[in-house]
Amino acid sequence: MVSEGMDMTSFYTAAPLCSPSRAAMLSGRLPIRNGLYSDNAFGRNAYTPQDIVGGIASSEILLQELLRKGGYHTKLIGKWHLGHRAPYHPLKRGFNEWYGAPNVHFQYDGTTAPNIPVYKDQNMIGRFYEGIAINLTTGISEYTQHLGEEALEYISRRGRTGKPFFLYWNPDSTHAPSYASARFRGRSQRGTAYGDALIEVDDIVGKMLDLLVNHKLENDTLVVLTSDNGAALVSKREAGTNAPFLCGKQTTFEGGFRTPAFFWWPNKIPAGNASSQVGTQMDLFATFLDLAGLPMPRDRVYDSISLKPALMNGDLDLEKVVFFYRGNGLFAVRKGRFKMHLWTWRTPQEELKRGIDYCPNIHMDGIVSATQVNHTAEPILFDVDNDPEERYPIRPGNSPTIYETAVGYLKKVVEKHQQDLVPGKPALNYCDPAVENWAPPGCEDLDDCLPIPASKVVICDWPH
Amino acid sequence: MVSEGMDMTSFYTAAPLCSPSRAAMLSGRLPIRNGLYSDNAFGRNAYTPQDIVGGIASSEILLQELLRKGGYHTKLIGKWHLGHRAPYHPLKRGFNEWYGAPNVHFQYDGTTAPNIPVYKDQNMIGRFYEGIAINLTTGISEYTQHLGEEALEYISRRGRTGKPFFLYWNPDSTHAPSYASARFRGRSQRGTAYGDALIEVDDIVGKMLDLLVNHKLENDTLVVLTSDNGAALVSKREAGTNAPFLCGKQTTFEGGFRTPAFFWWPNKIPAGNASSQVGTQMDLFATFLDLAGLPMPRDRVYDSISLKPALMNGDLDLEKVVFFYRGNGLFAVRKGRFKMHLWTWRTPQEELKRGIDYCPNIHMDGIVSATQVNHTAEPILFDVDNDPEERYPIRPGNSPTIYETAVGYLKKVVEKHQQDLVPGKPALNYCDPAVENWAPPGCEDLDDCLPIPASKVVICDWPH
Ligand SMILES: [Ca+2]
Ligand SMILES: [Ca+2]
Repeated sequence: MVSEGMDMTSFYTAAPLCSPSRAAMLSGRLPIRNGLYSDNAFGRNAYTPQDIVGGIASSEILLQELLRKGGYHTKLIGKWHLGHRAPYHPLKRGFNEWYGAPNVHFQYDGTTAPNIPVYKDQNMIGRFYEGIAINLTTGISEYTQHLGEEALEYISRRGRTGKPFFLYWNPDSTHAPSYASARFRGRSQRGTAYGDALIEVDDIVGKMLDLLVNHKLENDTLVVLTSDNGAALVSKREAGTNAPFLCGKQTTFEGGFRTPAFFWWPNKIPAGNASSQVGTQMDLFATFLDLAGLPMPRDRVYDSISLKPALMNGDLDLEKVVFFYRGNGLFAVRKGRFKMHLWTWRTPQEELKRGIDYCPNIHMDGIVSATQVNHTAEPILFDVDNDPEERYPIRPGNSPTIYETAVGYLKKVVEKHQQDLVPGKPALNYCDPAVENWAPPGCEDLDDCLPIPASKVVICDWPH
Repeated sequence: MVSEGMDMTSFYTAAPLCSPSRAAMLSGRLPIRNGLYSDNAFGRNAYTPQDIVGGIASSEILLQELLRKGGYHTKLIGKWHLGHRAPYHPLKRGFNEWYGAPNVHFQYDGTTAPNIPVYKDQNMIGRFYEGIAINLTTGISEYTQHLGEEALEYISRRGRTGKPFFLYWNPDSTHAPSYASARFRGRSQRGTAYGDALIEVDDIVGKMLDLLVNHKLENDTLVVLTSDNGAALVSKREAGTNAPFLCGKQTTFEGGFRTPAFFWWPNKIPAGNASSQVGTQMDLFATFLDLAGLPMPRDRVYDSISLKPALMNGDLDLEKVVFFYRGNGLFAVRKGRFKMHLWTWRTPQEELKRGIDYCPNIHMDGIVSATQVNHTAEPILFDVDNDPEERYPIRPGNSPTIYETAVGYLKKVVEKHQQDLVPGKPALNYCDPAVENWAPPGCEDLDDCLPIPASKVVICDWPH
């Protein structure tokens, strides 16, 4: 994709983990605005496990809703992760079709907690580890192949209509626990199911691009490949690497937020280029609408600008601001080449004891630490263009002029952001075992409805 | 160079710092054999500062000596670093011509220690910071431009003869203290003299390749670009980065030994390829002789194999062994994908206190440590093909079969190596202020002879 398209090397997610990141991309707004966060405690990452009560707010306008109104046929293939209960169902949120699961494919025992269902459109068609087999002993599952076949079928079918379509292909793989199909298992030199899964996803993406070319759709189709967070270093060898970036998923260091972003659109986006334009996944919202000739809603604040000039003409707007939130906490901000950390946090001590570490092997006193460190009085400053490793803090003592200037304007950026900010109602504060996937729609036909326990709403515990 | 040649991605130096690394490359033998090491204390890196008594042994046969005998004209441009006293002079060691300095360009006061001379062939023509200006306040010096002009002149002159030549272009830049020429100072985005110096060296290398093409010599000339050690992380922003490799120069982790290695030979080496063939700079010895049709001497043990099959035909011999010595200590060995650490060491405590750290921000208990750690009883094993970051030790507890098998054969490799090893006489044990560059040949004509102090031979102190 890079040799035929563009590699955006300073591209960021909107959150260092799955659900808030995806919510932000589809809404064009930070989680703190769109509500996909928790304020049970300061600066904690929350997502949508199956006992979560909430999901993406009905007041948010999602990318696929606007595209569909604009004439696009829309399909979600794979993980949704913005709420699994009825009001949040993808077909209620702008998708014509859905094949996939609402939550991540962790294994449950089917008694104290149900396994995650896989949906085809309105109804479930099976569950992971049951009808939809995942063998964690062998690391084999054909599920990614199903998601690939669905995509190829959809591209062929919609391609033939000559009408525009929007495919959000969201494979659950390579998320832990890792698996790959039998044909790919053992293919990677690394020998892990993660490595095999990566090869499998790569193979399917290649098939999609080939199919677009075969259908002569390549000059009318923008394909974007990205990830919703940095490598999950906590999964060790069953995850990627973030080199050269600091730490990984769950953190507000570069390793948590900076992600690959490849843009492929033959004869529209110049081939074989890299761009240093700073961008975020929220910008995909404005970019896609811009390219589709559709207007942005004007009734709310967006964290989204169109990247069209950077993609098509190589025009750079390097003053773009990036906010690094961990939960409800604004931990850092980047503008231009400088990134200012107001708060830093590694992994809580109790989690470190359990072997959970988002910054393995890293030691940076007072910066990569087991307790949240408040730097608002004297922020930590990095030149992340030239020091993407966040290794050399620019201190008032060693570079007073650069420090004062950069921290000065970054503090103004933060001040303005916080003055204007109207936080969304936090959707991820409450959990309840009764809302788990006991009896999803369609379970009756499959004879797979589990008894729903009594409701017991609790404050969700988000330790990170 | 990569797009027109080959990138060898598993290429190593023979030592994690300058002098022993260069001695090994030119002799085809490990420092422990060729003598460019010290045994004043176990496992300490030694080099050739200007008070060193020794240098490369006269019994070693150097690459340029063999090439010259085989009909090549030879020139050294830049740093020599294998002994600055008369017996070690490059023109006595196989070079027809020399332009450059014998030691690294540290600044001295000219009274308690002389500044380093620059030679043209037999005689000095000036000294750094004096006739050969280096301004450390502005970070400006034209010296690299001189080295570049010398190279272009030499290539043109020898190219016209139609006879073979060997140019060892060894710019002192980008070593600290950093400088760049006025035309390049300020060019790098990083804004450091190091960044500018890198751009300047790159520019000159480009000019050399262009010149070879202009003289129609490109199909008859192999050009290799590499470095004598990993990035000097101790120099912080005035040095490169090693990502994804662990630690830097001075250490036996991948960051100390693995270096870039680009091979350029249009129409001979296939363009745009990467090779995973494990190689070391000592292999350049056998490779160059092989390509020149010259025999290897048969009277001694070599640590050098010809890489010609890998370069020309893509044939891989992945079982090549790499030894990682720190001074006289065998710290690690790699064969195939596995690297076994017998000893590990970061930076001594007293140096850490002074801000000298070869592994900044790294914390790995018992592996990256301030004291030398002996792991011979239970070696530390990494799969450096799949974990080049040396982040995930393979432990007897987590992967007993892989561990036992790999450690088993690596221990045999070490055993055989140590049984056969005849260490060279260590050349870097003694230091003496009287041997410094007080009165190099040619100083009389320049009126630049300094009084030579009384001899006082001491055991050199190698703290690292
Ligand atoms: Ca993710
Ligand atoms: Ca060096």
